[in-house]
Formats: sequence, C-alpha cells, structure tokens
Amino acid sequence: MNGCQSVNINAERLLENIFELGKIGRNEHDELIRLAGSEEDKAGRDTVLQWFKEAHLEVEVDKIGNIYGIWRDRAIHPNEDPLLIGSHIDTVINAGIYDGSYGVLAGLEVIKTLQEMDFKPLRPIAVVAFTNEEGVRYAPDMMGSLVTVGGLPIEQALETVGIDDTVFGEELEKIGYAGEREPGFLQPHAYLELHIEQGPILERAGQTIGAVENLQGISWQKITIKGAANHAGTTPMDMRQDAGQVASRIMSFLYDHVKQNSSTVVTVGSIEFEPNLINVIPARATFTVDLRDPNEDILREAEEALNEFVERIARRKNVTITSEKLARFEPVKFSADIVQAIEDAANNRQLENHRMTSGAGHDAQMMARICPTAMIFVPSKDGISHNPNEFTPKKDLIAGANVLLDVVQKIAINE
Amino acid sequence: MNGCQSVNINAERLLENIFELGKIGRNEHDELIRLAGSEEDKAGRDTVLQWFKEAHLEVEVDKIGNIYGIWRDRAIHPNEDPLLIGSHIDTVINAGIYDGSYGVLAGLEVIKTLQEMDFKPLRPIAVVAFTNEEGVRYAPDMMGSLVTVGGLPIEQALETVGIDDTVFGEELEKIGYAGEREPGFLQPHAYLELHIEQGPILERAGQTIGAVENLQGISWQKITIKGAANHAGTTPMDMRQDAGQVASRIMSFLYDHVKQNSSTVVTVGSIEFEPNLINVIPARATFTVDLRDPNEDILREAEEALNEFVERIARRKNVTITSEKLARFEPVKFSADIVQAIEDAANNRQLENHRMTSGAGHDAQMMARICPTAMIFVPSKDGISHNPNEFTPKKDLIAGANVLLDVVQKIAINE
Repeated sequence: MNGCQSVNINAERLLENIFELGKIGRNEHDELIRLAGSEEDKAGRDTVLQWFKEAHLEVEVDKIGNIYGIWRDRAIHPNEDPLLIGSHIDTVINAGIYDGSYGVLAGLEVIKTLQEMDFKPLRPIAVVAFTNEEGVRYAPDMMGSLVTVGGLPIEQALETVGIDDTVFGEELEKIGYAGEREPGFLQPHAYLELHIEQGPILERAGQTIGAVENLQGISWQKITIKGAANHAGTTPMDMRQDAGQVASRIMSFLYDHVKQNSSTVVTVGSIEFEPNLINVIPARATFTVDLRDPNEDILREAEEALNEFVERIARRKNVTITSEKLARFEPVKFSADIVQAIEDAANNRQLENHRMTSGAGHDAQMMARICPTAMIFVPSKDGISHNPNEFTPKKDLIAGANVLLDVVQKIAINE
Repeated sequence: MNGCQSVNINAERLLENIFELGKIGRNEHDELIRLAGSEEDKAGRDTVLQWFKEAHLEVEVDKIGNIYGIWRDRAIHPNEDPLLIGSHIDTVINAGIYDGSYGVLAGLEVIKTLQEMDFKPLRPIAVVAFTNEEGVRYAPDMMGSLVTVGGLPIEQALETVGIDDTVFGEELEKIGYAGEREPGFLQPHAYLELHIEQGPILERAGQTIGAVENLQGISWQKITIKGAANHAGTTPMDMRQDAGQVASRIMSFLYDHVKQNSSTVVTVGSIEFEPNLINVIPARATFTVDLRDPNEDILREAEEALNEFVERIARRKNVTITSEKLARFEPVKFSADIVQAIEDAANNRQLENHRMTSGAGHDAQMMARICPTAMIFVPSKDGISHNPNEFTPKKDLIAGANVLLDVVQKIAINE
C-alpha cells in the first residue's frame, strides 16, 4: 500500500445515498420491494442512474438492463479494460436496505472520492448495478451477471416468464431499461464486490472485515419418497411403508454426515407429507436438500453419501425414492492477489478481519468466470438478511467502503 | 357349544344387503360418502330402518340418532336387558362398503336366522346402528356410542359444529333422526361387534377370525418447535436453531423407542415447516404424534420418554418446544368370557383364528364401559380401509357372521 489509507470516503454522503435508495419502492405497509423489472425497480434505477450522471460517469445500459457508470476521463490509459465495482439494486419481497445497494453505492462513492482527490488511475474505473440478482420474480437469480459472462443467452433470459406470468423482456422494455449494448461489452480488468455478510460469522468473531476468498458450491435436490398410506393403529411397525419415517431417517443421516466437515452445511427447508393426516401413515413425503461446501470434492462426496444412503434405505424400507436435481453450482475460488490486497488494506486500517467463505450466491461468482474477482464482507447483525431487520452498523459500512477504496486504488495503479 | 354351528346364516341375503347399502350415498364420481347427518346418511338410515321393520323388530331412535331394532317377542324373559349387536353405517369420504355396515347388517342377519330357526332366547336380542362413528363431519368420532354410555352430554353433542359449519343437532332434525328416546335407554346385557380388521394382520397370518381381546390406548399430540429462520448458506451448523432438524431428531427417537415393544406403534402422519423454503432454515416445525399400545403402562412410558427427549433436545438445540394433547384414550380390555366364546366358536367351525388387539377405535370401546363386550374381526385385503379398495372375501364375511351367530346363541341362552 502507498499510504492511501489516509484518505477516506465521504461517510455521510454514502450513508445518505443508502438511506435514500432504501426509501424507494415501499408499499402501503412500508415494505421495501423492488422486484426486477417492476415499477419500483425502475424508480430505484432512475435514481442510481441519475447519481451516476451527476458523478459525470459514462452511463451504459445493456440488453439485460445492467447499468454501468464508467469513469474514463482521468485514466492514463482510457481504453484499457476498466476495473469494475458492483452489485445489484433489486430486492426480495419485504427486504432490508443494504443487500446489494450497499455495494453499488459504495462503488459510486469510491469513484467520487477518487475524483475529489484528483486520483489518476492507470485504467478506467466503473461501477455496475446488475439486473435481477435476487431472482424472486424471474429465475434464475444472478441473471444480469450470468448473461454478462455468457452463462445464459440474452434471448433466453428475456423470454423468462415470471411468477406473475409476465415476460421479463417485455417488462424491461416497459420500464425503459432494455438497453442497446451487448451484455459483456465491457471486459473488466478485475471485479470487486462489497456486500453485507448476510450471516452471523463476522459478528460472532467481533470482526469488521471479511476477505472473501471463495464461495460455496451449492447442491439443491428434491427427494420424493413413495410408500403406502395405511391406518396408523392397525398396521404393525414392521409392515409399514412409512414415507415420513424414511424422510426423517434421511434427514438425520444428512445432519450426522455433515459433521465430518465443519465447512459443510445442510438444510432441509421444505417438506410435505401426503395425505398429511394424524392417523394415516404418510404415503408420500417430499423434501428439499440444500447442501453447500466451498470444496467441490467434499460437496460431491456428500452428494454420493446421500445417494448411497437413499438407495440402501429404499431397499430396506420397501419404498420408492426419487431425487430431482434442482440446482448445482461448483464452488468458486476468488483471486488470491485481490484477497491479499483486501486483507492488507484491512490490516493497514487496523480493522479486525479474517478470510472467509461466502455462504450466499453473489454476482461476483459469475464475474469470477471472466476476470480476477473478490469480495469484501461487513457484519450483519444477528446474521439477518432478506428481512426489514437486516442491519449493519454505520461504522462497519464506512469501514468496508474505505477498504474498498484502498483496494481499488491499489489495483487501479498497478500495471 | 351346543351344536349350533350346524346352523348357518343366509349368506346370500347378508351379502345382498351389504352390496345394496353400499350403493346408497354415491356421488357423481361414484364415490361412497355417507357423512353423519347428511342426506346420504338419511338414505342409508331409511333403508336399514326399513329392513329392521321388515324383520318385525321394535324400532327405536334415540336423541343422538342411534337406531335400535329390538327382537323381543320370542324372548323367554322379554323384559330382561337385551343382548346387543351393532356397529355404524356412517362412512368416511370416498369409503369402502364394509367398514361399519358389515357389523350392523350381520347383526340383523343373525336375528333373522334365529327367527327362522325358531330360536327362543332367554332375553331379547337387539341390533344397533350407532350415529357418527367416523367423526369426519362432526368431532369426536364414536359420538353415538359415547353419548350412549354417558361419556358426552347429549346437549353438547347436538351443539357440535361441523367442518361445514353446520350444527349437528339441526342436521339430525332435518333428516328426521332426532329421536325421542334418551340415549342409554337400552341397557345391554352384553355387546358384540363384528368388523373388518382394517389392518393386515389376519391376512398375513392366513387366518379368518380375530377374537379381539383388547383395544389399543391412543395418545395423540401435536408438537411445535420454534427455532429461527436463517440463510441456508451463511449460517454455520453450530449456530442454527433449525426447527426442522429438531423435528427429524424427535421423529427418529420415536421410531427407535417403539422398537422396545412390538405392541407399540407410532405414526407421524402430518408435518408442516415454516417458511417452508428450500434455502431458509425452518423457523417453525409442527408435527403430530399418534402413539398406541394395548398396555397403559407401556403407552404412558412411551409418552414420558418422548417428553424427556423433547426437553433434552430443546435445551441442547436452543429451540422452544410445546406439546399439545389432542386426544388420549386408555386401552380397553374386552370380556374374557366373550373372547373365549368367540375363540371356541371359530375352533368349532374349524376356522383359523387368533386373539388380537384392535388398532382402530370402535363403538365397542365405548360400550365396554357399561357391559361385557368383545369384537370379532375378519381380514381386510392388504389391510386397506377408508378407501374404495377396502375388500374382504365373501367367504370371510360369511364366516364372521356365522361365528357371530354362534356367540349370540350361546350368550342368549345363558342365565
């Protein structure tokens, strides 16, 4: 580092912008809802785009609606690939104000700070608000970044039908954000994303900064057990084909299995029995399995152990079990150099920090496919997110933006 | 036995009546539905009442709608307490034709056979169709017999509000079966109930007759676990308050615990998670526990073991668990003399038989409170009941009715 840590972002301005954007898209119950492609999304976009313009950034919107603000005029090599900072401004239903917005607005704030200190980067610096990261209205999530890196054809993305039966491309057109540029028109030199942790780890550790070195692989499946409905009183235990009993055995197996690796997490978040009556043995049980680990080998091993157990218990309990793969993402490794820069910056600012794994999905995981990428986390109170109680103390929001500022400076002047 | 086994019931007449009654109360999809107090129930009642009259029985209807047919005129002591045979004719939704109806119509058939053989009982013999045994439309089930034995005040029973928001007393009035007699006006000398097993035990054992010596105690509870909803990716396993995980642990504990006694059965038939999303740790899990055993001590011990485990895991997993008692019936022991008479009758007829426990609830469990009582079971194909596939072979239906005939004769001539 070159002493840059003596400069700080404008904390008041950053916080003001976060709170201002957090007021946009509230319904009559004061719930924050800016679903992708909605009128509320448009209102948020209009505000952020206006702020990009006020910072004299070149504004570009691509065909999937990603909004870029490029600061090129002070760059020594204005035609080099820009260093990109970003996140998203769409939200879930009844959201908090920090998820996504913090990263976009901190990116803008960093550029404004650099402008004010008359900083001359080697290459342009840009900020991006990716479209539809949450995926609530249109699947898949992280759609804007996925299309950007070529993981989903733009035509297909625009044809996505939403939970409200709308077509995404039509809605994007309607709110005026079906842009001209081809997705991926901007090849980043590197990508940085500052985000709230959305988990309890930093808070529990009493730390301010997480240098995110990787992102968990995710395995989602739906398991369906077909047994036989029978009378709960008249059927001896050894003559049952109890789909509910088998479900509980598989669940218990999973919770036991993941104890082998402290990095693995498993969640059975959703379950249904049929006929779901107190005195009838369940004929069918359906439940979801969400398995995550930052190591692909461990994740694959957990999937295999689950499959083997499922086959064994199906034979033993005389039931039919089917598994449907709902989603599968390999773990993502972020750039070791950038992670090191984040750690150095936090240490220079004497901020407690440690390297960590992202448990949630982020646009950064897509961007990592095409350029050196890393993320910075700040604490989430009680680990809560996707909820109006989502909260990060102001000092942590400011600290995270300052670390971002330091890392951006470092990358922006490196050859 | 006194050679009575040489006389048989009129098999054709019995089967014809069973199939005839099974046609009454079918909807446009040909589903059999005679819910208590409905127009379909009335149609079934009208038919059975007509058959009672055609057999020259004294017909009596009490205030809860139980229909009695009393054969008094040939009794040597016509004013003694009658020997009562019965069951019910109301059904579940989309029912089979045997559950309940078989017992009532076999009772009628036995009386007709005795009339035709010029049998002279010491005391009257009566047949009864109890009201609302199934309890589908109005809770509790076994309502007619429960009121008869004084277990539920008649006024309270008639005020019961149904799942369709109707008041039972009003519906009973409407269909013309709110009778004059006080429930319990007929004190039985003994009570006999012939019923399909509704379970797989006789079929598996290759036997025709079950001499039912007791009826399981039933313990129903609803268990609610309150944990905390958190992100499935960002929350380490050791920081979770996963209500779903705790539910599966309690379920597995129950299935393991009941292995200690082959007589105990446990069913978790119904479960709900909240918010029930693939990537959110369940904040709440609710499930039902149906525990049964013919021995009160063993049943109570299972309840206590469950309570202890629940307290332990609540502490260990930092969740709140509440249990709500939904129903609790102590086991019922039937009359050893009558059970012996059933066994003797089956042996005399060279019918494979064994003593067994009733896993389901029956009107006989109520009647056992006020008079010597026992039940006779015949096999159910694949143990299926409460379902259009409910089936018992004709030869078994006939065999059961003949055993009933023998036992009735024996009791009817004993001082």
